[in-house]
Amino acid sequence: MAERVNIAVDAMGGDNAPGEIVKGAVDAVNGSPIVKVFLVGKEDLVRTELSKYTYDPDRIEVVNATEVIEMSEPPVMAVRTKKDSSLVKCMYMVKEGKCDALVTAGSTGAFLVGGQIIVGRIKGVERPPLAPFIPTTEGRCLLLDCGANVDARPSQLVQFAKIGSAYAKKACGIANPRVGIVNIGAEEEKGNALVKETFPLLKSTPEINFIGSVEARDIPYGAADVVVCEAFVGNVILKMYEGVGTALLKSVKEAMMSTGRSKIGALLAKPALKKELVKFDTDRYGGAPLLGCNGLLVKTHGSSKAISITNSINQCKLFAEQNINDDIREMFNISTDI
Amino acid sequence: MAERVNIAVDAMGGDNAPGEIVKGAVDAVNGSPIVKVFLVGKEDLVRTELSKYTYDPDRIEVVNATEVIEMSEPPVMAVRTKKDSSLVKCMYMVKEGKCDALVTAGSTGAFLVGGQIIVGRIKGVERPPLAPFIPTTEGRCLLLDCGANVDARPSQLVQFAKIGSAYAKKACGIANPRVGIVNIGAEEEKGNALVKETFPLLKSTPEINFIGSVEARDIPYGAADVVVCEAFVGNVILKMYEGVGTALLKSVKEAMMSTGRSKIGALLAKPALKKELVKFDTDRYGGAPLLGCNGLLVKTHGSSKAISITNSINQCKLFAEQNINDDIREMFNISTDI
Repeated sequence: MAERVNIAVDAMGGDNAPGEIVKGAVDAVNGSPIVKVFLVGKEDLVRTELSKYTYDPDRIEVVNATEVIEMSEPPVMAVRTKKDSSLVKCMYMVKEGKCDALVTAGSTGAFLVGGQIIVGRIKGVERPPLAPFIPTTEGRCLLLDCGANVDARPSQLVQFAKIGSAYAKKACGIANPRVGIVNIGAEEEKGNALVKETFPLLKSTPEINFIGSVEARDIPYGAADVVVCEAFVGNVILKMYEGVGTALLKSVKEAMMSTGRSKIGALLAKPALKKELVKFDTDRYGGAPLLGCNGLLVKTHGSSKAISITNSINQCKLFAEQNINDDIREMFNISTDI
Repeated sequence: MAERVNIAVDAMGGDNAPGEIVKGAVDAVNGSPIVKVFLVGKEDLVRTELSKYTYDPDRIEVVNATEVIEMSEPPVMAVRTKKDSSLVKCMYMVKEGKCDALVTAGSTGAFLVGGQIIVGRIKGVERPPLAPFIPTTEGRCLLLDCGANVDARPSQLVQFAKIGSAYAKKACGIANPRVGIVNIGAEEEKGNALVKETFPLLKSTPEINFIGSVEARDIPYGAADVVVCEAFVGNVILKMYEGVGTALLKSVKEAMMSTGRSKIGALLAKPALKKELVKFDTDRYGGAPLLGCNGLLVKTHGSSKAISITNSINQCKLFAEQNINDDIREMFNISTDI
């Protein structure tokens, strides 16, 4: 087990930066003796936030960064020109080995670009997939790729399956994760050109436990532990998950507040509902990691609160402690000594 | 307004045939004086079911069909060889003008194949899209294509937009339906190759009210009235809608039954919840029509109960009464006299 896990946190990323980011980092440090966080951002702002809390000063370091990449900036240009931005500095800290991982709630585009061109891919990985966990009635499943590489090729989907398998094994503690491919029917002959071409390749990949096609309808019921798809489809799955979930819960709430009778009902049912519905909170497992890079890069929602940052830092800690990148390297038959 | 609308109903299609199908047809006939239904299927079975009900005998006719296309059969072969199947006979009744529309809860594959090769397309329509309504917090939106044509081309997506626009106008009574394209970001430069190529084409289609990209997350909130996408993506959206919706509601129910306190709460909140959540019932607007064919072809769930059949028949009635196919023809600049 690692003695210390060093994590760079983009203190300026997201709608609630730096307040919630700093709070989340402090909570993570106070929650685990092996976590060290580098808070990267405008030093004065970060220090002002930090002064509100008590923590082990040896395990939080502030790294000044004078620039911020805005959500609306064209990502490639932003990463190339804003060398002193909090996100780019975090990326370099991972690249140079000073940190094991990074967490940001900032621009997704800049995150994806920076991951590829600054931190870089594990040897053999063609395209790193974005791979969040999504909750299911049975627990959770890893969805990849959910937005990094649109129009991916079959060979890349096979890589996603291998990478996802390695990650789910240790992150979820599942010995032999069931890998499914998103399809519009259960039969092998169904699907679009990409799925039809990928299906036999997955079937003949001995490193994974391929269970065949998974229909989108069955994903929320835990039909597979690892769900592989092209990034456009993965993004649609993730966003539909959020959209339908929030719209439905909003309606449940509105219904419960609509009459005097239902209001009393709501009061009585609330504790049980809260306990059950926390299962569907997409943030509880941390953010979406970009897997297959030299280090773990985690993107959380732009609207992240402190708890999402803390969860994401804990996700990085687990990733480093369990040496998951060594397992991914092994999937690509690369010596872990490299 | 049409004096009579003739609708062929596949009495043998789906898990609950012929019982629920016949019941749904009787309810539709009893609900509207202009509907005439042709129940196509094994005559003895259909008559046994019919004998349970009272209805105007002039407006229900039984058409014998000795064969049934099973869900698992390869569709092209089934449509070609089972000429005396209930579904194929329904198709021919529309093709020959005996019926304005058909409703089936049977094999989706055979439905799509039969629609194209038996009933045929409106002149100018490259590929008929499958176009169900999905409920939103604001009402409903038309999603097309949701399963008929995977790997569609940009020109076909533009056709879907035109066809969907014409349909939504009259089916929902919206003067100028907002048409959006499913995308993984709101900006024009986002998307996969298909979306990037289609976007400018939609922008320069004067017949539609194109509002740009729609993220999947915003669809359940009514971001557009007509949502255009390729069939693989559309199918994933529809199935995610169903999967997340049912999984979440199952959890809400379980939570409410989990403690004595929550059970009382559930009892009190139930009427309000029921009233609100009926909005999210995907069956309430009828089935999924295959638009752009010479007649309306409606596919309902394999597990359809009588109410879905009744709703689908009413959907056909509206379609015929409003002469929606004339509007679709107009979109393709084809004289409605043809």
